[in-house]
Amino acid sequence: MGMTMTQKILAAHAGLDSVSAGQLIEAKLDVVMANDITGPMALPIFREMAETVYDKDKVVLVPDHFTPNKDIKSAENSKAIREFAKEQGLSWFFEQGKSGVEHAILPEAGVVTAGECIIGADSHTCTYGALGAFSTGVGTTDIATGMATGELWFKVPSAIKFVLTGKPGPYVSGKDIIIHIIGKIGVDGALYKSMEFTGDGIGNLSMDDRFTMANMAIEAGAKNGIFPVDEQAEAYIREHSKKEYQIYTADADAEYDQVVEIRLDEVRPTVAFPHLPGNAKTIDEIEAMEPIWIDQVVIGSCTNGRMEDMRKAAAILKGHTVHRDVRVMVVPATQKIYKQCIAEGLVDIFIDAGCAVNTPSCGPCMGGHMGVMAAGEKCVSTTNRNFVGRMGHVDSLIYLASPEVAAASAIAGCIANPEKVGERS
Amino acid sequence: MGMTMTQKILAAHAGLDSVSAGQLIEAKLDVVMANDITGPMALPIFREMAETVYDKDKVVLVPDHFTPNKDIKSAENSKAIREFAKEQGLSWFFEQGKSGVEHAILPEAGVVTAGECIIGADSHTCTYGALGAFSTGVGTTDIATGMATGELWFKVPSAIKFVLTGKPGPYVSGKDIIIHIIGKIGVDGALYKSMEFTGDGIGNLSMDDRFTMANMAIEAGAKNGIFPVDEQAEAYIREHSKKEYQIYTADADAEYDQVVEIRLDEVRPTVAFPHLPGNAKTIDEIEAMEPIWIDQVVIGSCTNGRMEDMRKAAAILKGHTVHRDVRVMVVPATQKIYKQCIAEGLVDIFIDAGCAVNTPSCGPCMGGHMGVMAAGEKCVSTTNRNFVGRMGHVDSLIYLASPEVAAASAIAGCIANPEKVGERS
Repeated sequence: MGMTMTQKILAAHAGLDSVSAGQLIEAKLDVVMANDITGPMALPIFREMAETVYDKDKVVLVPDHFTPNKDIKSAENSKAIREFAKEQGLSWFFEQGKSGVEHAILPEAGVVTAGECIIGADSHTCTYGALGAFSTGVGTTDIATGMATGELWFKVPSAIKFVLTGKPGPYVSGKDIIIHIIGKIGVDGALYKSMEFTGDGIGNLSMDDRFTMANMAIEAGAKNGIFPVDEQAEAYIREHSKKEYQIYTADADAEYDQVVEIRLDEVRPTVAFPHLPGNAKTIDEIEAMEPIWIDQVVIGSCTNGRMEDMRKAAAILKGHTVHRDVRVMVVPATQKIYKQCIAEGLVDIFIDAGCAVNTPSCGPCMGGHMGVMAAGEKCVSTTNRNFVGRMGHVDSLIYLASPEVAAASAIAGCIANPEKVGERS
Repeated sequence: MGMTMTQKILAAHAGLDSVSAGQLIEAKLDVVMANDITGPMALPIFREMAETVYDKDKVVLVPDHFTPNKDIKSAENSKAIREFAKEQGLSWFFEQGKSGVEHAILPEAGVVTAGECIIGADSHTCTYGALGAFSTGVGTTDIATGMATGELWFKVPSAIKFVLTGKPGPYVSGKDIIIHIIGKIGVDGALYKSMEFTGDGIGNLSMDDRFTMANMAIEAGAKNGIFPVDEQAEAYIREHSKKEYQIYTADADAEYDQVVEIRLDEVRPTVAFPHLPGNAKTIDEIEAMEPIWIDQVVIGSCTNGRMEDMRKAAAILKGHTVHRDVRVMVVPATQKIYKQCIAEGLVDIFIDAGCAVNTPSCGPCMGGHMGVMAAGEKCVSTTNRNFVGRMGHVDSLIYLASPEVAAASAIAGCIANPEKVGERS
């Protein structure tokens, strides 16, 4: 029986001709990543196993969550991984002010590429599936093991095949599509499975759309999300990375637990209501409700802090002013994106509209800093999780949305349809 | 006997023909300001005294210290003053993303002007003395009283006269001069006194130099710092404010406790060593020492986050790279300054050099967020206080310096002389 794309990558990294769902394997790792939260927790475990990392070019540390350092504790954590990186002579330590958010900077800097087997001590490590890599989030013990040995055991996942067809409408992007999908299958709809995206609709999705979608695979419980490597993906990879890469394709007779067809032209701007990413409502359903007044908008994160996200938000905000009762945090995901935003005049648009533009950081996404919410506050956020208390007080509410919906909502003061911003001004 | 400039302003606001040092008076207030730390503490006290503020155009609230909200507590504090501002219909509430750091935004937005009597629940409220105003920091009970009644009692201060002559050298700015002065008179050298700056050297100081110097008057223990209103000051005032203003000049026979002459051409780039702003060392003394290796540089704050500060730092950093062991936080003090930095290409210079450029906030200055230090770390900072633990761990060290010394140090990795950056590259 044939293998899925994910299974092929795992087989190759396990040195096996074939693997099948449920099989336990030991796979070689191409990249082992941790951040300023998980890294410091992994270090003592690593110290018990080894003196040096298995490969100084493959162990990557990114202080991005509570940086620029939020408090003494986070400063100590950043210091711990900084000193470790120096001690071990790591090639990739992404210092504050010189890099960005882990899941944006690793593809941008060419640290990750197609066909790789990647683990990260962060649940949204699945992002790199957009490049045709097997990439998954793991815990601190696993990451310590990976740092020490360069290998990790996996249970080979089965898969759900998502066949994407058609072209999304002008105000629909990867975020709407993935929220639509999670709404359809539920937050445990892909539990420990691969979400393998296929179909001719993929050609209509930008790389930034794909990163957003792969990023949120974990929100459906998936082990990983993965896209085929088409010309667009190869162009991205060649532009950003000098690493050799390998393209794996699913066998024609690969077995899937389920096949889900998604007509992209039918996907509407879609918002995930509190407190689950699967609690999806279309903008049409929302427009039929009483207005949901908001206090804050966040545009950024590993999910939607990339160049296209910034462009889309700015296109909506241009010439408009943020609602007087709303504060807006824009956080470009990397310094390169930030600079490009400046070059294209987007930062001017954001500031003129009344947005705070922050240095790259995970920031408010997990209630870290740079926009934490008080009791009773509501936020439209382009981030990836709207669990209870995720961005602050347990009585605050998070509505996950695309950059365009977020920008339209910032102007209106309530969750709003980006298709109608022109009418409102 | 004649009156000092400060005494004249106080007399006018107390409705008296003259006042003298030590006299207790009740003065009318033109501006009463609080921030997101002091405002929430003042509100319950205010509620015991009054239902409405004495003048909705004169009570000003600025959430700038822990914003964008660092955590739930700070979000609740911002919310408290936001709701109060809305309830009272205040004309001036400076929301996150739409304003900046209090002592930069108030002059920029024209909220404060010459001849006024201003109190703020923040010790660096003395900044507005650069505009020829009497302006001083007070505690929460006083600010609540001011908000309720529009009046406050003062003990009329005596004064020290600083006669500034000559022109500072190319790498010497207001920060060097004020650290030099505090080094000379000590951190209690002007205890409860006015620091009145006079002399033909003032014409050689930009408004930004003067804001920096007035800002740090409190670091010598002064009640206030004040500059005469010359043509340059009037031009600034007319550009920024529509308020009527009044120019007060010291009487020729005004009495001073002390007269201190400062030859500006003799002031060297000067750094305040831990743990006091008066612990001044010239760059020449520092160059004779072993290198002082640093971990962080902060360029910004109410002391040095203005346009000239940004320009001076960028001029040094241009074409250079931040030292690999140093992280740099640049924080323009207002959105307008931030935008101007973009327009002039300064943000590009900062990012290319490897600096994190943050949204306007007090940030790391008082260890708030956006760059807090771990144990054993050292920072060259353009902020105003280097007390033990001010910017993080009690075992971290702060060296107060000008933007140019800070930028030069960022490149060198140790406290460095900006006069010699060219040689190093």
